Amino acid sequence: MKGYVFHGPGQSAWEEVPDPDAQDPTDAIVRVDTVTICGTDLHILRGDVPEVRPGTVLGHEAVGEIVEIGPDVRTLQPGERVLISCISACGRCRFCRAGRYGQCLGGGGWTLGHLIDGTQAEYVRVPFADLSVHPLPASLSSEDAVLLADIFPTAYEVGVLSGRVCPGDTVVVVGAGPIGLAAITTARLFAPERVIAVDVAPARLEAARKLGADAVADAREAPGLVGDLTEGLGADVVVEAVGVPETFEMCTRLVRPGGHVANVGVHGKPATLHLEDLWARDVTITTGLVDTHSTPTLLRMAAAGRLPTSQLVTHTFPLERMEEAYDVFAHPAETGALKVVLGGPQREVVPVA
Amino acid sequence: MKGYVFHGPGQSAWEEVPDPDAQDPTDAIVRVDTVTICGTDLHILRGDVPEVRPGTVLGHEAVGEIVEIGPDVRTLQPGERVLISCISACGRCRFCRAGRYGQCLGGGGWTLGHLIDGTQAEYVRVPFADLSVHPLPASLSSEDAVLLADIFPTAYEVGVLSGRVCPGDTVVVVGAGPIGLAAITTARLFAPERVIAVDVAPARLEAARKLGADAVADAREAPGLVGDLTEGLGADVVVEAVGVPETFEMCTRLVRPGGHVANVGVHGKPATLHLEDLWARDVTITTGLVDTHSTPTLLRMAAAGRLPTSQLVTHTFPLERMEEAYDVFAHPAETGALKVVLGGPQREVVPVA
Amino acid sequence: MKGYVFHGPGQSAWEEVPDPDAQDPTDAIVRVDTVTICGTDLHILRGDVPEVRPGTVLGHEAVGEIVEIGPDVRTLQPGERVLISCISACGRCRFCRAGRYGQCLGGGGWTLGHLIDGTQAEYVRVPFADLSVHPLPASLSSEDAVLLADIFPTAYEVGVLSGRVCPGDTVVVVGAGPIGLAAITTARLFAPERVIAVDVAPARLEAARKLGADAVADAREAPGLVGDLTEGLGADVVVEAVGVPETFEMCTRLVRPGGHVANVGVHGKPATLHLEDLWARDVTITTGLVDTHSTPTLLRMAAAGRLPTSQLVTHTFPLERMEEAYDVFAHPAETGALKVVLGGPQREVVPVA
Amino acid sequence: MKGYVFHGPGQSAWEEVPDPDAQDPTDAIVRVDTVTICGTDLHILRGDVPEVRPGTVLGHEAVGEIVEIGPDVRTLQPGERVLISCISACGRCRFCRAGRYGQCLGGGGWTLGHLIDGTQAEYVRVPFADLSVHPLPASLSSEDAVLLADIFPTAYEVGVLSGRVCPGDTVVVVGAGPIGLAAITTARLFAPERVIAVDVAPARLEAARKLGADAVADAREAPGLVGDLTEGLGADVVVEAVGVPETFEMCTRLVRPGGHVANVGVHGKPATLHLEDLWARDVTITTGLVDTHSTPTLLRMAAAGRLPTSQLVTHTFPLERMEEAYDVFAHPAETGALKVVLGGPQREVVPVA
Repeated sequence: MKGYVFHGPGQSAWEEVPDPDAQDPTDAIVRVDTVTICGTDLHILRGDVPEVRPGTVLGHEAVGEIVEIGPDVRTLQPGERVLISCISACGRCRFCRAGRYGQCLGGGGWTLGHLIDGTQAEYVRVPFADLSVHPLPASLSSEDAVLLADIFPTAYEVGVLSGRVCPGDTVVVVGAGPIGLAAITTARLFAPERVIAVDVAPARLEAARKLGADAVADAREAPGLVGDLTEGLGADVVVEAVGVPETFEMCTRLVRPGGHVANVGVHGKPATLHLEDLWARDVTITTGLVDTHSTPTLLRMAAAGRLPTSQLVTHTFPLERMEEAYDVFAHPAETGALKVVLGGPQREVVPVA
Repeated sequence: MKGYVFHGPGQSAWEEVPDPDAQDPTDAIVRVDTVTICGTDLHILRGDVPEVRPGTVLGHEAVGEIVEIGPDVRTLQPGERVLISCISACGRCRFCRAGRYGQCLGGGGWTLGHLIDGTQAEYVRVPFADLSVHPLPASLSSEDAVLLADIFPTAYEVGVLSGRVCPGDTVVVVGAGPIGLAAITTARLFAPERVIAVDVAPARLEAARKLGADAVADAREAPGLVGDLTEGLGADVVVEAVGVPETFEMCTRLVRPGGHVANVGVHGKPATLHLEDLWARDVTITTGLVDTHSTPTLLRMAAAGRLPTSQLVTHTFPLERMEEAYDVFAHPAETGALKVVLGGPQREVVPVA
Repeated sequence: MKGYVFHGPGQSAWEEVPDPDAQDPTDAIVRVDTVTICGTDLHILRGDVPEVRPGTVLGHEAVGEIVEIGPDVRTLQPGERVLISCISACGRCRFCRAGRYGQCLGGGGWTLGHLIDGTQAEYVRVPFADLSVHPLPASLSSEDAVLLADIFPTAYEVGVLSGRVCPGDTVVVVGAGPIGLAAITTARLFAPERVIAVDVAPARLEAARKLGADAVADAREAPGLVGDLTEGLGADVVVEAVGVPETFEMCTRLVRPGGHVANVGVHGKPATLHLEDLWARDVTITTGLVDTHSTPTLLRMAAAGRLPTSQLVTHTFPLERMEEAYDVFAHPAETGALKVVLGGPQREVVPVA
Repeated sequence: MKGYVFHGPGQSAWEEVPDPDAQDPTDAIVRVDTVTICGTDLHILRGDVPEVRPGTVLGHEAVGEIVEIGPDVRTLQPGERVLISCISACGRCRFCRAGRYGQCLGGGGWTLGHLIDGTQAEYVRVPFADLSVHPLPASLSSEDAVLLADIFPTAYEVGVLSGRVCPGDTVVVVGAGPIGLAAITTARLFAPERVIAVDVAPARLEAARKLGADAVADAREAPGLVGDLTEGLGADVVVEAVGVPETFEMCTRLVRPGGHVANVGVHGKPATLHLEDLWARDVTITTGLVDTHSTPTLLRMAAAGRLPTSQLVTHTFPLERMEEAYDVFAHPAETGALKVVLGGPQREVVPVA
């Protein structure tokens, strides 16, 4: 079959690789119909994720059809159309028992396209299939579904749920890239009074508005705007969706006493925590890797038409044009790319930005 | 009357000051029987708390008897013996309505011995008396009670409750000074599997053992010990009870994935937050000023003999020896002081350390 | 002034009564602009609430303007337009400190139009004004606001919050009268997958559909419909909004294992609790009187256009036509009345049912 | 091998039965060392649990050694000493993913000694072994451990956790049989101010005192005693540990406004719920089957010496004297039996009652 293979920093190709086989009794083999590319995949290509060995097929998000199951797969059948989650779960360790699949100690967690071959291929082996793929309702398009493999549960769990968004809240989302836009969309599920998007790129702020932000601000305007809207107290919840020290520190300045800062961004460097200001302000700061425990709920919401995930899709390609898709996704300033989807029915897309 | 007056950095005296008068309808005037000294008082004396104006009577913890009440005090009577809490509460602002009295916007919060004259005097005016003093059960000694004005609710609310200590947990308390020792004592209320005390001073670790720590470690030993006891995962809850960058950063290294770091320490400088390690570890970090919402509960527990607060008292003095008491409290390495209590019946104290 | 006075079962009149005076330092006197009638008022008229003494002015919901304040009212000024909440709060007892104002031990709770003169009059004395009235944003109409005095916080707190509605849930509301319709509306704040309304009256089910129910059923159809939509498991949350034994028992049959039954209905008789079926089903049943702790949040939501409360208003009258308004409200089958509003600007209303 | 077989109401025997075989990839075969008898087993013998077919080996609690594992058992090895939980868990259905194993839809839940052969035998097949047995620390005796198979997690999860016992609470446990005594013991983990035991049998109240109840009362005294100790408000948490309508109704009269009634008792008949009193009292009532999600925590606590489970054991027998053990357990009024343990090292027991 064909797959997109990492050959070391800066080197990768869509090329012939061996078909996967079921190895463990809980494995499923899935024929991939639709995949997407994650910001993390770009990090791998740059060499920032050293545990990815050369020769690994990338990708941890897909929609496809089960073609084979191991003898201890109990809830799935060949022929079923499924979503492959970015997180696998052994289901037996202390973290899986608590629904904290992202921290799985038994061989799950983020493994696809990381420690084992991933989904950017024609077929993929999925370990612990019962807990790692989700049957799809017929009414849900593959394009809508594939964004529920990673980006939407990440924004929802690590941003909105960890941040404890409540009805009536003022929510600030710092960073209006794909993950920030997904946070804006899923924060809306809790009826906040307002969601404020903060970014440096006017095009992204414009996208944020289209996807439901009530107000937008660039980094310099943000403190004043948030203060004006909250009697000077700050936001109830601030979601960090960038991953650099400056934006994290901004988040801790925008939050009200008693409020929450939910970090979603992937950080490569330490940040400064201004405890000399924060120690007495009753602030809660959370970090997290997605567990995908919310995926069944989000799938039901999407199938019911209540979660417009594919609004984030700006470009679609056939599977074999993977290299071109990566190129478009890697240059959003030029291409306007938010999420790029491969496979499935091709269509004309009107980008939000 | 006499009171302990701050006259600017390094200058203070037990001296004659005017008697306080009731000013607002919700004021009470309390005759002070028993007070204690807080680490914060030492900060004020050093000039670290610039909003304290010269001429202010210090102190924010006391036991005494109500001698006068304003016309809108509804739940108290002259003659009642009460605990004066370190936090006052207007009871009407959005934070007070949520029980977050420490953030009061209506004139409460930490005001005694800070923005208005405090308790280290023969008499004190307490604003918002209904919500700021607590009638004392006759069975509870003043010495036990006075430690419930600040240190015990602080350790319990900001450390134990914010840290979400649960039965079976491994809890680490970094810093075995008075506040850390109170955290060890109150963590025990939730039946953790073990509490580990970390400090650099052997005498403090010895005190921690006597007050219920199951294991103790100095800073270098702590990571190894915690790892050994938790299958390498880290502690469920880590309480920071020092207030310097190094100990805060240690706390974030000692916590397990999915665990809580509860900062109680008062910080004067920023700390480094290692988001490059923490972003994916599902960590929750909390800060906070005490609200004293738990004081009625802790008072009941202490009166029932279930909370041995006065174990922390190493020295007692009559009220008029305030200056000497400050001197003893300010030099714990030489004096072995944990908490110093003034007024009330004098007694011989056998220090725990 | 004029007020609507209860003179014993079946006897009441809009008649001349003495003007109210401020009695306590925390009282406010409010000139009433807009009031509504509650189902509880009808109970009082029938003699079902014996603690209401003849001579009492009825009514516990209003919008008006403050004309006088006592010397310890701190957050309000004469001239302010306010919402009078159905619940007063002393702010000092153990229940008020926990935000459980409906259980106030210090003279608050439901007193207006119950233990003291109420709001169906030209003026009303409101005790504990700081905690019992809410300043109104100019953008919010009196008609929208007055429904936030009782019915909306009741449906939201006792139904939606106690029932713990979550995104993706299936919610059943049994009873599509005004309170049930408010529960449907406020359940929507948490993005349930679907809300199902159950009633015996087709007109009320039609109103439920117009106000956002995704599906409706009469009592006989409900079990089958709920089973079909939930793979036979039952609803996540069931709200009882009628107050008779039969509907309560239906609720306990419609809930899934692990689900919540939130009772909002006012009951006059015991119900049968089928513990022989329920003991092993992990069911949570809650009851409650409204606390109105959510009123500030709901006011913000309504002012932001996110909570269309006045959709429930089917009839409006000038204040002096109180007796006619009671008559219309007491006969909803004939009049189609949901909520009847008096005072404020008169308008033509197109009823939803 | 030998096993204790149900042959229909009133008929049962310790007799020869076939050895069990591993059938599914996740099965384990365990050699039983220590078992106990549950009140539910007596219900089965009386014919109250009709889904138990004649020919079934009874028992759902045991300690033993793994002798064989299926090919998809990942966390266990032959030779390991384990606790067999009363609840099995498929680990894959929606309820198992939420830790609600007692409601398992995938073939787990309460099956041992119910729908399949159980533990009162020399060997037993345990389905879904990874999630249904727990490796035992060497320091924990089998007698202490076997009570963690059902009675202690039931009392803790369904009584104490569902009842939300908090430090400082007044807790009432109605019924001082084995499950009530386990509720008293585990309620202590949250440092309540007091635990009050209520029963009709003086011997059981005496046992309750020995196991840590602070006060005891018979049914007639209970309302007065609880009122006296709580300023007339009622208890924070009331645990029903009997299972008849009268005791359940008593619980709803003993609880304070805002309090919790946690039903643990197994009921055969409906109870009356006095909604005419309760509708406005903010009461939460919970029911539940144990999930055993807390078993790892309780095992750690017991191994650390913090949970004295075997205090409940009044009689021990060798395995082959099963019939005699049933007879003793079935007549507690005559024998003083609380829990009866079979197998393991025999010892002299001094009963608590």
